[in-house]
Amino acid sequence: MKSIEPFIRDINDFPKPGIVFKDLTPLLNSPEGTDLCLQELLKQIDGAKVDKVVGMEARGFFFGTLIAKALGVGFIPVRKPGKLPYNTISETYALEYGSDVLEIHEDAISPGDRVLIHDDVLATGGTAAAVCKLVERLGGKIVQCNFIMELEFLRGSEKLKPNHVASVLKY
Amino acid sequence: MKSIEPFIRDINDFPKPGIVFKDLTPLLNSPEGTDLCLQELLKQIDGAKVDKVVGMEARGFFFGTLIAKALGVGFIPVRKPGKLPYNTISETYALEYGSDVLEIHEDAISPGDRVLIHDDVLATGGTAAAVCKLVERLGGKIVQCNFIMELEFLRGSEKLKPNHVASVLKY
Repeated sequence: MKSIEPFIRDINDFPKPGIVFKDLTPLLNSPEGTDLCLQELLKQIDGAKVDKVVGMEARGFFFGTLIAKALGVGFIPVRKPGKLPYNTISETYALEYGSDVLEIHEDAISPGDRVLIHDDVLATGGTAAAVCKLVERLGGKIVQCNFIMELEFLRGSEKLKPNHVASVLKY
Repeated sequence: MKSIEPFIRDINDFPKPGIVFKDLTPLLNSPEGTDLCLQELLKQIDGAKVDKVVGMEARGFFFGTLIAKALGVGFIPVRKPGKLPYNTISETYALEYGSDVLEIHEDAISPGDRVLIHDDVLATGGTAAAVCKLVERLGGKIVQCNFIMELEFLRGSEKLKPNHVASVLKY
């Protein structure tokens, strides 16, 4: 079976020394890689009913929009503070040093909407957990937290329980 | 003929007093709106041969990836400084107060590639002009600067000459 792995580039010491960053830009730059990755992301949804796809700024926008288009449902961006122009609700989450904030439009999700959350990489899970809270506060039901890659040694999926986590690649 | 206009929301005084911001999130949240907008964006390419689609961080990522997928070509993100992990080239451009920088991966485009540049809104044209320079420095040929909306009173298209500019909506 074909894998998306050859389309992913390891960048040593990015964003800081000792970290090996998984660069997805060669995947996006290849129509074959993009098609393959989208098919894998759809496969892991496994036909579950989805009403909305939520993607995180900014790398979650790439395949988030493609998944939403393929499923024929709306796409909702979660963004950094001050970027969304209409009324928002926000969640603060902890980083290694300090904290960060994510926002969603208050009218983006209707109570009962079945929501797929997508991002490129699941690391510590802090960002995705904050997005889950935003979706739940608007009354959305989380169908799946859907990733291209999961860095298992960081145990991010534990932070997302009891939500279902799925990833195309695990490291 | 159907228009994408009903899917765009005016937000008064965003990001600052006196400005009416065109909010595209209702368009993204609607599969009908997204399909219609994508069809209009493809129509204005008018069958021209395209090898790569370049989209600007972050709102150019939404339809940039969808256009690339529809054309069956690669997508290349242009990003703010420090976001792209591999070797980059950069362009500085003037803002109303101060300046900003955009980066592209140095291997993203091959000499002779026919490149479509996409962003959501053409305003003063400063960002798009910087992206044109990045693409040209890598040897790319610009097929079109492709936008959802153009704020004509800001005369951004003049800054992009002699490149071809196309927009679904003009204000």
